[in-house]
Amino acid sequence: MLEKFKKEVLKANLDLVKHGLVVLTWGNVSALDHKSGLVVIKASGIPYDRMTDDDMVVVDPYGRVVEGRRRPSSDTPTHLALYKAFPEIGGVVHTHSTYATAWAQAGLSIPNIGTTHADYFHDDIPCTADMTEAEVMEKYEWETGNIIIERFKEMNPMHTPGVLVKGHGPFAWGVDAESAVHHAVVMEQVAKMASIAYALNPGLTMNPLLIEKHFLRKHGPDAYYGQTGHKK
Amino acid sequence: MLEKFKKEVLKANLDLVKHGLVVLTWGNVSALDHKSGLVVIKASGIPYDRMTDDDMVVVDPYGRVVEGRRRPSSDTPTHLALYKAFPEIGGVVHTHSTYATAWAQAGLSIPNIGTTHADYFHDDIPCTADMTEAEVMEKYEWETGNIIIERFKEMNPMHTPGVLVKGHGPFAWGVDAESAVHHAVVMEQVAKMASIAYALNPGLTMNPLLIEKHFLRKHGPDAYYGQTGHKK
Amino acid sequence: MLEKFKKEVLKANLDLVKHGLVVLTWGNVSALDHKSGLVVIKASGIPYDRMTDDDMVVVDPYGRVVEGRRRPSSDTPTHLALYKAFPEIGGVVHTHSTYATAWAQAGLSIPNIGTTHADYFHDDIPCTADMTEAEVMEKYEWETGNIIIERFKEMNPMHTPGVLVKGHGPFAWGVDAESAVHHAVVMEQVAKMASIAYALNPGLTMNPLLIEKHFLRKHGPDAYYGQTGHKK
Amino acid sequence: MLEKFKKEVLKANLDLVKHGLVVLTWGNVSALDHKSGLVVIKASGIPYDRMTDDDMVVVDPYGRVVEGRRRPSSDTPTHLALYKAFPEIGGVVHTHSTYATAWAQAGLSIPNIGTTHADYFHDDIPCTADMTEAEVMEKYEWETGNIIIERFKEMNPMHTPGVLVKGHGPFAWGVDAESAVHHAVVMEQVAKMASIAYALNPGLTMNPLLIEKHFLRKHGPDAYYGQTGHKK
Repeated sequence: MLEKFKKEVLKANLDLVKHGLVVLTWGNVSALDHKSGLVVIKASGIPYDRMTDDDMVVVDPYGRVVEGRRRPSSDTPTHLALYKAFPEIGGVVHTHSTYATAWAQAGLSIPNIGTTHADYFHDDIPCTADMTEAEVMEKYEWETGNIIIERFKEMNPMHTPGVLVKGHGPFAWGVDAESAVHHAVVMEQVAKMASIAYALNPGLTMNPLLIEKHFLRKHGPDAYYGQTGHKK
Repeated sequence: MLEKFKKEVLKANLDLVKHGLVVLTWGNVSALDHKSGLVVIKASGIPYDRMTDDDMVVVDPYGRVVEGRRRPSSDTPTHLALYKAFPEIGGVVHTHSTYATAWAQAGLSIPNIGTTHADYFHDDIPCTADMTEAEVMEKYEWETGNIIIERFKEMNPMHTPGVLVKGHGPFAWGVDAESAVHHAVVMEQVAKMASIAYALNPGLTMNPLLIEKHFLRKHGPDAYYGQTGHKK
Repeated sequence: MLEKFKKEVLKANLDLVKHGLVVLTWGNVSALDHKSGLVVIKASGIPYDRMTDDDMVVVDPYGRVVEGRRRPSSDTPTHLALYKAFPEIGGVVHTHSTYATAWAQAGLSIPNIGTTHADYFHDDIPCTADMTEAEVMEKYEWETGNIIIERFKEMNPMHTPGVLVKGHGPFAWGVDAESAVHHAVVMEQVAKMASIAYALNPGLTMNPLLIEKHFLRKHGPDAYYGQTGHKK
Repeated sequence: MLEKFKKEVLKANLDLVKHGLVVLTWGNVSALDHKSGLVVIKASGIPYDRMTDDDMVVVDPYGRVVEGRRRPSSDTPTHLALYKAFPEIGGVVHTHSTYATAWAQAGLSIPNIGTTHADYFHDDIPCTADMTEAEVMEKYEWETGNIIIERFKEMNPMHTPGVLVKGHGPFAWGVDAESAVHHAVVMEQVAKMASIAYALNPGLTMNPLLIEKHFLRKHGPDAYYGQTGHKK
């Protein structure tokens, strides 16, 4: 079932490797079938060089395995929480990519200091608060989703499609798995460039006019980047 | 038409990837046919791994498409402004390469602190001023060209063939597309080395004698680098 | 003899190269056959691109060559000291990987500031004390093992399977050669991320709850990461 | 003539690329035939991906071309000065490798803070003084050799086989071209690790006992690293 989604999620997982976001087996991608409400996600701890469609697991919104011989990613509840809270999204990515993870470890949001960032993320990519003992000890992965959702209470997840979980690493999302991977790649790159830029000039400032301009060049009714506009 | 230029611009775009200057689809190269005044430029948002001659668009000096089924790069007006203002150039490159972009985000010119820099760029690679609301809201890409031109009012664009647009990223140029790519590669490398050098010694100084010597070894009537001198 | 171990140690050595941990010939892996007490280790100074099973040397617990035409790695006594002191381990890796070695040169333990670290190492990855003249001049490589063992007097080597030798570089270990390589890869990556994170925020703190949670997700009776739990 | 040397120098040049020390055409290797006193060196400005034996030029000790259709590297006089002053060397390498060049731009010697450094270089890798106007304007490349030789007046070039020319970049040497490349690779790696280590701990110190021990493990009558000792 959902063979098309399995192929997409497999490709998206392999694209993480191609873009250099994965060390060992750290990283997972999922996609939501809006019709059935089912989610396809990578199995836990599978080496990327031997991954096949068979390592894609189908789960229901409660995380119960509907199809697949393997155990789904241990981060599955986080993915499910995001799909439930952000109804427009259709793909979620989690990695431990180097620079985005370093910002998460630093406990800092990635500031919007360039048009590269503004082309894809309207705001700073926020870093969550510390989790409490109750959140960590019970339903940890589900609560990881909840602190992300809490952080986005007054933000638009489609305008800023990613987050840093403090002390852990980045999550990104999009309308589908491919778009989520795309945003994970951008997040890693802007995290890297921002770390270099701040080392050069700790007092740097960004022109807010450029942020609005670049975000609107790629998003919304007047987008004029790409061949058809770019609404992902 | 202009098939030779299309092949050159396609090769130049792919060379950006080969030299590691491109993430996703960020980057574009153009070339000017001095005879006809027409410009060949990459189409907007095309993946590099599927790019062909057909993705090269021919535009006139006003940016109107003369040939090609695709929409030209959204940065086309910036390229055209540079060709108009700097009559000796025949190729323009724009990338979001990591270190050059970080310097642009820091809002700092890349200082000429080594012979690697002086071999290709006589002066610091300048960073533009912030753009005003009028410049950003109306004809943004054309005005991006204008702030570059403004920055070069008292500089020789053939002696310092590149610039950083503040908060955005680098543009480089040369006598043709290949030369422009060459300068984009050098700019990224000197940006990287300068960021490391300043972290090691914030008070470093460069011997101005070496700058003159190295620039003149490669440029001007007494050049003696390479097999025939090197006037690009 | 021990052909299976030779193949495993050869593969583990080549995996170091695949993961980017090796420059020139710097790095060695060994494995212990718990039954016979013999150790298979890479020969000294062999280029990785011509390495074969024949470059694997079998030594006894005193470092005497039991089989093999080549001289074993000069670090062999360090490996043997670790096998003797840490009876649960079956593989040891030594590299000069870039970031872990830089932390060793800085004389600092790699702090546990992220879940990536906590997934594999319960504590900070400790840096040893300076060696004394007696330790350096006599039986240097054996004493290198001893200062590691001294550093772990009140630590569990299976919970924190790696160390930095001050001014030198990292050693990692595990239940077998593959697991030791795995830990060396993680150590390099957490060393890199920690160096970036501290540059961004020198005052960063880690939530200790996350450390316990992530370590226990992968280790011990209630592990639920991977397909079968993950006890390496 | 000197076909064997040409092949060695060609291979050494290509090894620079393999080890990531070369951007564009920046880098050159030469070798000295002690018997004839002739030197084989790369031609100036040749792309590495099309380089053949024919791009190797034979020059005499005064830099006059003895064989070859191309112009030799513009740095040829520096190589010749080093061969004249350091009679034990048989190969010289010059690159603009990223981290070593950054140290040269910072105007700082690369400090000996680890066993990786001590395995190959007994002392700090020194940075030369600034060149004077007379030195830059007349016989610049020859004088570049002279400031290196001046810097080594009280140092042993076989114990510390490399140098940084201030504001320019690294030179390395050895008993032959292969050994010189080897030392250039090590210099780049220790430059990188030292820049990371100092960022982590500006007050770090190195145990001088380890320096002596590691240098002597690889050099001199009691060397015991590698299969036969290692006297390069």
